[in-house]
Amino acid sequence: MAKAKFIGDLKAGMELAGEPFLLHDVVRRQSKDGRPFLLTTLRDRTGQISGVFWDVPLAVDVWARPGLGVLVSGRVTTYKDAIQVNISDLNRANGIDLTDFLPASRRSRAEMLAELRDHVAALAEPWQSLVAYILLEGELAERFAAAPAARSMHHAYVGGLLEHTVSMAALARHLARHYDYVNMDLLLSGALLHDVGKALEYSLGEGFAPSDDGRLVGHIVRGVVLIEHAAAGLDFPEDALQQLVHLIVSHHGTQEWGSPVAPKTLEAVLLHQIDLLDSRIGGFLDHVGNDGGAGAWTTKRSDMFGVELRRPPGFDRYARPNNQE
Amino acid sequence: MAKAKFIGDLKAGMELAGEPFLLHDVVRRQSKDGRPFLLTTLRDRTGQISGVFWDVPLAVDVWARPGLGVLVSGRVTTYKDAIQVNISDLNRANGIDLTDFLPASRRSRAEMLAELRDHVAALAEPWQSLVAYILLEGELAERFAAAPAARSMHHAYVGGLLEHTVSMAALARHLARHYDYVNMDLLLSGALLHDVGKALEYSLGEGFAPSDDGRLVGHIVRGVVLIEHAAAGLDFPEDALQQLVHLIVSHHGTQEWGSPVAPKTLEAVLLHQIDLLDSRIGGFLDHVGNDGGAGAWTTKRSDMFGVELRRPPGFDRYARPNNQE
Amino acid sequence: MAKAKFIGDLKAGMELAGEPFLLHDVVRRQSKDGRPFLLTTLRDRTGQISGVFWDVPLAVDVWARPGLGVLVSGRVTTYKDAIQVNISDLNRANGIDLTDFLPASRRSRAEMLAELRDHVAALAEPWQSLVAYILLEGELAERFAAAPAARSMHHAYVGGLLEHTVSMAALARHLARHYDYVNMDLLLSGALLHDVGKALEYSLGEGFAPSDDGRLVGHIVRGVVLIEHAAAGLDFPEDALQQLVHLIVSHHGTQEWGSPVAPKTLEAVLLHQIDLLDSRIGGFLDHVGNDGGAGAWTTKRSDMFGVELRRPPGFDRYARPNNQE
Amino acid sequence: MAKAKFIGDLKAGMELAGEPFLLHDVVRRQSKDGRPFLLTTLRDRTGQISGVFWDVPLAVDVWARPGLGVLVSGRVTTYKDAIQVNISDLNRANGIDLTDFLPASRRSRAEMLAELRDHVAALAEPWQSLVAYILLEGELAERFAAAPAARSMHHAYVGGLLEHTVSMAALARHLARHYDYVNMDLLLSGALLHDVGKALEYSLGEGFAPSDDGRLVGHIVRGVVLIEHAAAGLDFPEDALQQLVHLIVSHHGTQEWGSPVAPKTLEAVLLHQIDLLDSRIGGFLDHVGNDGGAGAWTTKRSDMFGVELRRPPGFDRYARPNNQE
Amino acid sequence: MAKAKFIGDLKAGMELAGEPFLLHDVVRRQSKDGRPFLLTTLRDRTGQISGVFWDVPLAVDVWARPGLGVLVSGRVTTYKDAIQVNISDLNRANGIDLTDFLPASRRSRAEMLAELRDHVAALAEPWQSLVAYILLEGELAERFAAAPAARSMHHAYVGGLLEHTVSMAALARHLARHYDYVNMDLLLSGALLHDVGKALEYSLGEGFAPSDDGRLVGHIVRGVVLIEHAAAGLDFPEDALQQLVHLIVSHHGTQEWGSPVAPKTLEAVLLHQIDLLDSRIGGFLDHVGNDGGAGAWTTKRSDMFGVELRRPPGFDRYARPNNQE
Amino acid sequence: MAKAKFIGDLKAGMELAGEPFLLHDVVRRQSKDGRPFLLTTLRDRTGQISGVFWDVPLAVDVWARPGLGVLVSGRVTTYKDAIQVNISDLNRANGIDLTDFLPASRRSRAEMLAELRDHVAALAEPWQSLVAYILLEGELAERFAAAPAARSMHHAYVGGLLEHTVSMAALARHLARHYDYVNMDLLLSGALLHDVGKALEYSLGEGFAPSDDGRLVGHIVRGVVLIEHAAAGLDFPEDALQQLVHLIVSHHGTQEWGSPVAPKTLEAVLLHQIDLLDSRIGGFLDHVGNDGGAGAWTTKRSDMFGVELRRPPGFDRYARPNNQE
Repeated sequence: MAKAKFIGDLKAGMELAGEPFLLHDVVRRQSKDGRPFLLTTLRDRTGQISGVFWDVPLAVDVWARPGLGVLVSGRVTTYKDAIQVNISDLNRANGIDLTDFLPASRRSRAEMLAELRDHVAALAEPWQSLVAYILLEGELAERFAAAPAARSMHHAYVGGLLEHTVSMAALARHLARHYDYVNMDLLLSGALLHDVGKALEYSLGEGFAPSDDGRLVGHIVRGVVLIEHAAAGLDFPEDALQQLVHLIVSHHGTQEWGSPVAPKTLEAVLLHQIDLLDSRIGGFLDHVGNDGGAGAWTTKRSDMFGVELRRPPGFDRYARPNNQE
Repeated sequence: MAKAKFIGDLKAGMELAGEPFLLHDVVRRQSKDGRPFLLTTLRDRTGQISGVFWDVPLAVDVWARPGLGVLVSGRVTTYKDAIQVNISDLNRANGIDLTDFLPASRRSRAEMLAELRDHVAALAEPWQSLVAYILLEGELAERFAAAPAARSMHHAYVGGLLEHTVSMAALARHLARHYDYVNMDLLLSGALLHDVGKALEYSLGEGFAPSDDGRLVGHIVRGVVLIEHAAAGLDFPEDALQQLVHLIVSHHGTQEWGSPVAPKTLEAVLLHQIDLLDSRIGGFLDHVGNDGGAGAWTTKRSDMFGVELRRPPGFDRYARPNNQE
Repeated sequence: MAKAKFIGDLKAGMELAGEPFLLHDVVRRQSKDGRPFLLTTLRDRTGQISGVFWDVPLAVDVWARPGLGVLVSGRVTTYKDAIQVNISDLNRANGIDLTDFLPASRRSRAEMLAELRDHVAALAEPWQSLVAYILLEGELAERFAAAPAARSMHHAYVGGLLEHTVSMAALARHLARHYDYVNMDLLLSGALLHDVGKALEYSLGEGFAPSDDGRLVGHIVRGVVLIEHAAAGLDFPEDALQQLVHLIVSHHGTQEWGSPVAPKTLEAVLLHQIDLLDSRIGGFLDHVGNDGGAGAWTTKRSDMFGVELRRPPGFDRYARPNNQE
Repeated sequence: MAKAKFIGDLKAGMELAGEPFLLHDVVRRQSKDGRPFLLTTLRDRTGQISGVFWDVPLAVDVWARPGLGVLVSGRVTTYKDAIQVNISDLNRANGIDLTDFLPASRRSRAEMLAELRDHVAALAEPWQSLVAYILLEGELAERFAAAPAARSMHHAYVGGLLEHTVSMAALARHLARHYDYVNMDLLLSGALLHDVGKALEYSLGEGFAPSDDGRLVGHIVRGVVLIEHAAAGLDFPEDALQQLVHLIVSHHGTQEWGSPVAPKTLEAVLLHQIDLLDSRIGGFLDHVGNDGGAGAWTTKRSDMFGVELRRPPGFDRYARPNNQE
Repeated sequence: MAKAKFIGDLKAGMELAGEPFLLHDVVRRQSKDGRPFLLTTLRDRTGQISGVFWDVPLAVDVWARPGLGVLVSGRVTTYKDAIQVNISDLNRANGIDLTDFLPASRRSRAEMLAELRDHVAALAEPWQSLVAYILLEGELAERFAAAPAARSMHHAYVGGLLEHTVSMAALARHLARHYDYVNMDLLLSGALLHDVGKALEYSLGEGFAPSDDGRLVGHIVRGVVLIEHAAAGLDFPEDALQQLVHLIVSHHGTQEWGSPVAPKTLEAVLLHQIDLLDSRIGGFLDHVGNDGGAGAWTTKRSDMFGVELRRPPGFDRYARPNNQE
Repeated sequence: MAKAKFIGDLKAGMELAGEPFLLHDVVRRQSKDGRPFLLTTLRDRTGQISGVFWDVPLAVDVWARPGLGVLVSGRVTTYKDAIQVNISDLNRANGIDLTDFLPASRRSRAEMLAELRDHVAALAEPWQSLVAYILLEGELAERFAAAPAARSMHHAYVGGLLEHTVSMAALARHLARHYDYVNMDLLLSGALLHDVGKALEYSLGEGFAPSDDGRLVGHIVRGVVLIEHAAAGLDFPEDALQQLVHLIVSHHGTQEWGSPVAPKTLEAVLLHQIDLLDSRIGGFLDHVGNDGGAGAWTTKRSDMFGVELRRPPGFDRYARPNNQE
């Protein structure tokens, strides 16, 4: 059941035999004469494609719902300027590596983890121990490395949280030198941990659906609880902990945006600005990359910006990003 | 240094000899010919009064600032329809019972604690153990019983948090019967614990000034951390804990009002409504009680309601409230 | 033309012969080869179901529009997890009892009216005469008993206004004892009359479409005019009338929510809070009940709360509510 | 007790002997050595002036409060670029014509009433009878002619409501010709009656303080009740009445601005726009006229516009306006 | 390729042979058996109609996109209460007069231009030269006369900007007489030039799509640049220019509505109010005219007003408007 | 009239003889016995101090108003923890270097100009010529180097605009490398020119009072006009100009914050974020520096952040900043 053909490589005329995809969306339709069919959206980490399944067996119809891994057989056909899959068989996939199914960061995970370790190594103690325990050593480390940074707005792909985190860490280190009075260790720890609660906010097994913890507690409060718990085990100094917790709690900037308290320290203000900056740029490039059109402007409005965006000259949606320092 | 004369009982002509008060506010002024004087506001639990101190000794001038306990000597004078204190001597007070200095609930603490115990006793396990541990037995219990529910908006007096909590608990028990499908234990636990973080949000020693924890973390997140910590010690079931944390996190109702997530369960919606109801009624009666005027309408706008309020017929600002069941 | 089969009882394979329903929605579609068909939504008080009508006679096509009573012949078929009606004949229904067609309160009207009379009987004079005249004796009484409390948000069904009113009246009586200084007669009269203008706001004959009066005048102003008119006939004391009118005018709480003046008396603040509480709980349960899904969370966002809601354990959408005291 | 000297004519050195003014504001102050004094603001229809009263007799001190008519004796002194009154005696005035005390329209009332009658005469029946009954013949007519249009924002002076009304009526007649499909009688009746409830909203005897009716019911709802009552006596057609009531109810334009329903007819949209236009221009000129400065820009921000305003070249705050057609 | 048959005149059974239309919208669909078809919306200045194109040649499919002129062959068929075009051939149209394709003002352009010239002639120098240069003589004049005033909200048709401008100019002249202190030349120049930047904001060749300049610069800033440029060539007095630029910059009234500075002069406040008034009335009539329904109320909510609107009695969507003086 | 003693160096007991200051604020007061006095705030670039002037000569009283340069004679006295000036003579200062009077950047102008030139030199053509012409060579260059970046929020001191600009330019160069697809020349030009209109927005001669151009046109629109004018003289490519103008027009981010269009290109989004970041950090440090208190928290709320801020450990309000790279 290993992945053989990626959506980015499909061409009309290809045959698929039990190829794994994520069933991102599925809608039941009925034709006039009563023939049921399924309209599906299939995804892997390279993109998404439509699929039509006529004469669906009842068994399939019972289990098919968004967020599952599936094995697809059928033929790639072309219609107008788009290709689609005419599905002849659909089975549920189990025990597969989800990162092949979900849209994923175009940066290599190994490279990003190396950057993460470098940022952690730059911290003085006791900061280094705390951050390393949470992000590199603890039981959360793996989920952290795979999680998206958001469900749809920005960095909404496998590894997106890690990509967003290391980009912010690099910015934090630069800005701590650019401005006076900045406590570099505090700011960098805040940048590395600010979204750690997001490791528990989405359920990758269901296509980034919000988890119960994400719905009921939210990543800000969950992040604080995780950090308080880790700090208790490490005898982390209380005053520094309070400062760090303040950065987590306030990083959305205002109550309207979900922070129960506003930033009140220099590092908290900086962290909020860095987060805003990196998520806005991420959201800009994601929207341009996901928009199907080919003109100078995106065909759809960005939800984040409320307007249509202008594609940067030379933009290539499949190129590897280059946002390391 | 025990309290002998309360502000509610002062009359023109009385002499004060080292009487303890809270120095709620102090402003330095200089007369035209260079004589410095202090304009002060003195408070005890029965109200507040202005005081003027001419020819202030330099020593006094150095330490006098809002939020301290002071011992006042002088004479009560009358001017127009108001009395004031002409201060002849002012000393710092130490080691005194702050509850004599701050505005305090007009309900007796013993009575409210009895109600609190009754509400806790009404809980099934494991809820009862958790709530009892936090509110009755732990190191926080005493601070909880003395804290105000807010700095200014409603129940802004010693014991206000307890008064607000037992009123809400009584409402929660009634509404859990009035509506279907309500989990009484969950709702009542949420009502009892929803503001527990406020026990650490204000500094009574400085006239309800916000503490560092209140400024940097806030009572919602602090409350969750306290509950998670207590639950960890008691092996509280994870699912019930998540539901309870949701009630704490969402009880302000919207992000604009400081809740990082919105209420999403029946009990969370109810708790927010009960909190809104009890704080609005509390804020109404506090504003009417604090407004100096005597007409049918308050002379000042309520910050909470944005309008002047109509005094309820028969309203007596010194009467003991009767909001127990 | 009496109602024989209710939607809640339909099963695949049943035949319908001139069964009355409300034609809640109707859309015209055309197939590729030019065959017109109608997609309809049929409603009765137990729920709603889709219906498809092929080969529609021109005569039907002319009169069919949302909000009419219709007589349906055809067969109940099953497709996937849903049943639908394949319509073979459709006629306009006249002179039928609309309450069989519209979603209706699951509480019995007789029971609710008994509660209403009990609440009115609890009022002292002159309040009792005024409220009784408007709600029990006058020409409005019947419309009041049948009206919904809203078009979609909460208690949006036949008898919903009555159900909301008696629930609020019970809460008002409880809260008038819970808090000091509350004028019970004023508050209870306000609770009973606050939405009386809604008896004229919707047109039941058109599926709760807003009436001209609802669109142009609105239930708040219409309610005041009705009360002022009744009071003029009863020589109701002017001062008490002004207080009561204030409760009607301000019960939405703020101008943003449609009240031309904000609540300024204790009873007006209480009434607004009770209304908010009861409509939020009603809206929560309505949304959970109307959501088609079966998981722990509703599949759709609630318009009222802006989020998906968690179904209360044990929730049964067909059970009779139990919100009497 | 007739008015002899107006504020607009006062000059340093003049003596006042029992001259009537409105006591617009009064603040009690105490000097360092305990001498009480009153700082007052005196008003008549031509403007306002400060007054200082040293060695106030106790009797005066008891009754003096804002909103009373007073008889002032003393001397006009000059200090810097402003004159003030050094008060030597102050007595309560009774039975005097309040219009001499309050700021008043600079247009003559007779002239404005003539315009009002002309506008009413332009109406066809049954509109003419209804409007004439309410504004010209009924018991409200006199209050209508004297009332201000607002407490502070625009036309906040005696006769301001009348001035605003006739200006709007003239605009309504012009715009009904400028645009198609406008029902002139409906629009003009709405313009004439839209603020009729304001005749009861302020208490002239207390310096435009809001009346109980203004606070509890508000001019929009009161206006509708007045019109419904008058219409009932005149057998006014129900449909036209509903249209007219819609104009009253919606003339603030949105719920945020206090209209329980939004404008939904062409005439309602027009009326709201005319009201907005005339009150904005009135508010602009009032702010410029009331601002004490002499530069190109007002020294204070306008509450209505949120910015400082530029004085129109040639602006003369004492000239009679010329906004008739 | 001249226009022979207008949509307003089409009847079932007519044959079209290469008739020019604007291809306003085009959607590709595929039938169950794989037959592709195009669903189109065709427009000319008299309205819009749906068109279906079966068995689309590949060549057509490549170029067809919204905003092009097309030549349509086919037959008008009738289905239910609507007519549509069954397209048999579709070709791209070049070199045609776009004003026949787009919805257009129902007022004659010659008549509106005569009014425009009359308004310009009413200006004193140097205003007259500046306005005449920009609107009548310069290279922009033709685009100004054809542009719409908005993409969808109001006056969204060819000539709409001119129609809106002359209506506002007439109102400006009237209001400059109605109120005191108004500089007629300044206000009238502002009314004539306030939206001049809109001549460059939309691309008529693409069905009012926003131009790059409209997206990146916007009509307010573009308008100022155009006026500053023209003024530089005419030695227009600096002070008057600054006043005029203020009117352009502030005419949306607030920053929320897109004006970088708020109105601060009497003329700027007036201009904003006139613009609001005329665009609201225009938007009201446009919505009523575009709504397909036939009842007393529009079937759709107006985006501008947020509610359904009541059709004025006697409203005729095809009649020529009469909003000249 | 050269500056001899700076406020930062004043000590009790010093004598001032015709020392130049900015008269930042002046209030007239009258003592009980009629003695007029002036309360003043004096400023120079090192800070501000209060001054009291008894027995003011009439001549002085006539001309004294905020925003003038003055020559002060008198003695520095000490009262409590603050020093003040007892003024014995006050004269108007003419022909003096204003930068000695106003609060000024603590960075040296020469150093900042060197950085500015370095940033300009980093630009490719044609960007370099355009930016150099406007900021370094043209008639605006000197005003640009002296202007504040705002009236009160951030960088509100002489040279503040330059300090803010070079800080942003350094950030822009860093971020153009951090993210992909960024046009470095466009972004850096935008950073350097984004606030160029502010060179005309404030009147330094009146203590940063807004100029007529600032009030009526605003710095965004004025900046665009300046750039368009310069570009016309340099034959700057039209397309690049449109991109640059977009950056200026949109740099406030939303209409609510004063940008008539929202950012729609990658560089516009980045520029807005950089501006937000640098002004927030500037505003944080300014507020902490201006707050008189000495505790861990500022005594006053920051207008920019809406809360009290925590002083960074080691913060020194007189130290030279170090925000160059």
